Amino acid sequence: MSQRRYTLSLSCPDRVGIVAAVSGLIASCKGWILEASYHADAVTRWFFMRQEILAESLSIDIDEFRGRFAALAKEFDMNWRLSDSAVKKRIALFVSRQDHCLSDLLYRWRNQEFDFDIVCVISNHPALRGFVEFHQIPYYHVPITPENKVRSFGRMEDLVNEHRADAIVLARYMQILPRGFCDRFDGRIINIHHSFLPSFLGGRPYHQAYERGVKLIGATCHYVTGDLDAGPIIDQDVIRVDHSDAVEDMMRLGRDVEKTVLARGLRYHVQERVLIHQNKTIVFD
Amino acid sequence: MSQRRYTLSLSCPDRVGIVAAVSGLIASCKGWILEASYHADAVTRWFFMRQEILAESLSIDIDEFRGRFAALAKEFDMNWRLSDSAVKKRIALFVSRQDHCLSDLLYRWRNQEFDFDIVCVISNHPALRGFVEFHQIPYYHVPITPENKVRSFGRMEDLVNEHRADAIVLARYMQILPRGFCDRFDGRIINIHHSFLPSFLGGRPYHQAYERGVKLIGATCHYVTGDLDAGPIIDQDVIRVDHSDAVEDMMRLGRDVEKTVLARGLRYHVQERVLIHQNKTIVFD
Amino acid sequence: MSQRRYTLSLSCPDRVGIVAAVSGLIASCKGWILEASYHADAVTRWFFMRQEILAESLSIDIDEFRGRFAALAKEFDMNWRLSDSAVKKRIALFVSRQDHCLSDLLYRWRNQEFDFDIVCVISNHPALRGFVEFHQIPYYHVPITPENKVRSFGRMEDLVNEHRADAIVLARYMQILPRGFCDRFDGRIINIHHSFLPSFLGGRPYHQAYERGVKLIGATCHYVTGDLDAGPIIDQDVIRVDHSDAVEDMMRLGRDVEKTVLARGLRYHVQERVLIHQNKTIVFD
Amino acid sequence: MSQRRYTLSLSCPDRVGIVAAVSGLIASCKGWILEASYHADAVTRWFFMRQEILAESLSIDIDEFRGRFAALAKEFDMNWRLSDSAVKKRIALFVSRQDHCLSDLLYRWRNQEFDFDIVCVISNHPALRGFVEFHQIPYYHVPITPENKVRSFGRMEDLVNEHRADAIVLARYMQILPRGFCDRFDGRIINIHHSFLPSFLGGRPYHQAYERGVKLIGATCHYVTGDLDAGPIIDQDVIRVDHSDAVEDMMRLGRDVEKTVLARGLRYHVQERVLIHQNKTIVFD
Repeated sequence: MSQRRYTLSLSCPDRVGIVAAVSGLIASCKGWILEASYHADAVTRWFFMRQEILAESLSIDIDEFRGRFAALAKEFDMNWRLSDSAVKKRIALFVSRQDHCLSDLLYRWRNQEFDFDIVCVISNHPALRGFVEFHQIPYYHVPITPENKVRSFGRMEDLVNEHRADAIVLARYMQILPRGFCDRFDGRIINIHHSFLPSFLGGRPYHQAYERGVKLIGATCHYVTGDLDAGPIIDQDVIRVDHSDAVEDMMRLGRDVEKTVLARGLRYHVQERVLIHQNKTIVFD
Repeated sequence: MSQRRYTLSLSCPDRVGIVAAVSGLIASCKGWILEASYHADAVTRWFFMRQEILAESLSIDIDEFRGRFAALAKEFDMNWRLSDSAVKKRIALFVSRQDHCLSDLLYRWRNQEFDFDIVCVISNHPALRGFVEFHQIPYYHVPITPENKVRSFGRMEDLVNEHRADAIVLARYMQILPRGFCDRFDGRIINIHHSFLPSFLGGRPYHQAYERGVKLIGATCHYVTGDLDAGPIIDQDVIRVDHSDAVEDMMRLGRDVEKTVLARGLRYHVQERVLIHQNKTIVFD
Repeated sequence: MSQRRYTLSLSCPDRVGIVAAVSGLIASCKGWILEASYHADAVTRWFFMRQEILAESLSIDIDEFRGRFAALAKEFDMNWRLSDSAVKKRIALFVSRQDHCLSDLLYRWRNQEFDFDIVCVISNHPALRGFVEFHQIPYYHVPITPENKVRSFGRMEDLVNEHRADAIVLARYMQILPRGFCDRFDGRIINIHHSFLPSFLGGRPYHQAYERGVKLIGATCHYVTGDLDAGPIIDQDVIRVDHSDAVEDMMRLGRDVEKTVLARGLRYHVQERVLIHQNKTIVFD
Repeated sequence: MSQRRYTLSLSCPDRVGIVAAVSGLIASCKGWILEASYHADAVTRWFFMRQEILAESLSIDIDEFRGRFAALAKEFDMNWRLSDSAVKKRIALFVSRQDHCLSDLLYRWRNQEFDFDIVCVISNHPALRGFVEFHQIPYYHVPITPENKVRSFGRMEDLVNEHRADAIVLARYMQILPRGFCDRFDGRIINIHHSFLPSFLGGRPYHQAYERGVKLIGATCHYVTGDLDAGPIIDQDVIRVDHSDAVEDMMRLGRDVEKTVLARGLRYHVQERVLIHQNKTIVFD
């Protein structure tokens, strides 16, 4: 887990020779490939690739490699990123009153289950300050009211930027983000919705599930866009319920699914395993 | 599996003393209880019960028991049924071109996995005649066109009645039943829908799922009502998919879920394990 | 969730009239049944029952009810317990270095997901003191060496008794308990084993799983007996792995299963949902 | 699904440049890659690859490609296969009395869910002849007794060879194959074992599971070797059971898992998705 690695992820129009060109370049620099994944979408004729290269194996430094790759990328019209595992992703957490996802992510951060830092926690409630500050992570209480909503989200955006966060995780944050906010962090806000989307969008999904009498409930981790609960899905999971489960039981059972799915989704994002294409995701897990 | 048993299922307004009264009556007739299930719905204050009684243990015959129970049922305002495992449920299957559910149910019937008879198969296509008739089950080809729809469903209703079917199973039958037909067989038509309801109602659910980019696909077994895909859900299940799965892969993976969920739902129905209450089901599995 | 309730659980030789007698007694005291579960084991001819009675509905107090029930229990040769949800179960946690189960149980305790208290945490390592003491729960560091093992377990037993713990949870405690210790807390020590038992008993189960090339890994929550990893199983679950998962990946994936299965098992135990019979459990979930 | 494709699968010692060399060769022949999968085993330092190439895209014929690839393969010390989807895999099924797997595979064969042919069915019982012959597949009844065992397996081997079967599927065949037989078809005999291996090897696994009181039961699809139930695992799955499930219920529930897991394993094998390495499998699903 601790070997330094460069992760190359890219997408481009599909054609003959992409893998040959990319792997040829990597091989020419003595790059040792730890993990490689490919996907060719037959419908949109688009190609996706992710490579993990052992950092110490490269015969040239990362900037020179980046330069050589840029030339190739241009030729193939690639959308690409090259990230370095030594540079930890910086995550800002938004929470409200419920702390199952927060608590779970803090555990994973304490144990460095995967490489990420929680640079700050922002909440519209003061309740979780003690638990967060025990971890020596800054906690900002930014209340949201109909009157202060614009100013508050402005403040939150400033905080995210001051802490140089790479991504925002809505760990059961119960406020709807303004569309502009969503747009400025496009592809960098991860939400956990407490239903199996597209079932039960919007508010009180467990109540909706109870009313409909479904036999499984679920949770969905997705990127946030301006359209509520309609962004690209990263991961989902479900758990069985039956007639004996009241709404409160569904909430209890659902929390375990929510926290696991969110953590999985965040790990995929942080490790550059997710590529977004036309409101869908390619996840190289 | 082969012991003859009487199954008592009932629902009524909840109050103190229901179980005492019912179990007192059964005990007074020396009834040996093989399986017992209860559910009290705290929201609607309604009570549900299912008991399997070993037939040979009863000190009185079933008609006398039925008589004594009727008096008690009246006192508690019960909706109830008493069924005899020696009287097999008679099932009419409706199919179209796809045979995965048909094939699976025929296997279960050949092996008498649970007590039911397939009394006839009705299809709007001729394709599956050979396979059905190999099993010595009558096969009726009733084509459906916009012009003959009323007459055809009339014919199908006659066939169901002539074969004295207790229930109809839509084993991937791709026609929408007329509302009147649904009403006349209320609580006795079981459908398998190839999505995780309420996601993706209506036509081409796998295409809808592919478009939305979900990470799990599912199937739902439900009772048919006049509202399309909105009846009480008996059972559901899901299977994981990812970006590499085309619509055809979803269909292939989904078929295995569909046939398993339908078979499970049919078994619950046939063994009187399902009680319907306000568009939801209590399933004593 | 917050209504006070009495939970009656019992087992006895099966015969006609048990349910009638028990429910007759409850009804005669105006007891309102919130939840009722029954199981008749056809092989051993043994009967099991669990009832949740709304405390405020009983027309007599719990001691009088206990007295009346004792007479009935004697007649039917019952093994029985009557517990009061207002009296929280007191749990002692044993941990080593890994804190995923500890962290998860502390979350559930903070949020009172179900009624239990963590009265102390005992560890053979000092590492988790800060996190536990943040929760204002006493933390005892009791190192274990080959030389001090007898004395140390004596000390731990004293601590458990001083804190009047009803049960001990081994939340990834990596020492083997002495047989005598196990015997004295028979049916009251709950362990989480990091494999799908009976596969991979004993040490390093993920390494064993990796060597065998299994495609699913799991976790098992069970009561501890003098026979290592052979006690009655309360719950189990699994997660899919594949050829790309190294032992470290299995450990990471497995931790999520372990903590969920342990929490589920503990809830079953605390809510008197588990009855032990001949090294197996009846779990009324 | 219907495009003709060549599937290249290979394994070799890992080193820099393998992907570059292989993809370079394919690109030089204008090969359009439909699906590509890679795995580098960090422990054994072994490399595995599978490529699906669109047949019509290749600028040279398959034999010429095979020739060019052979030279490259030699350089990298590769173990490799190149198969053509137009040449269907020929499968011999061995069955006994139970027909859930047989019935399920016949369904998939009738519908050509994936490309394979069932060239014959061999059974130690006559019971399933009618159902198999309805499908116009030859059925051979080869009884096995302690006395005739050697001769009977000789006969069966002859039948397999006469029908030019590429692989044998033990679809709940209840006889143990002689070691020599296993050796001669090494990597080409697929079995479904009705437990979650390595739990409950050998006979009557559901009875063993019932005795142990497990909360999940499973099935394992694996290659057969001379060591009973110890060969490389291709796939596994489980289903939940509880105290109310008798051995017969476990058998019923287990059959659905068995048939699904076997079908999945067979598909992986037929589509050259499985590579065997040191008693483990790499499955590119």
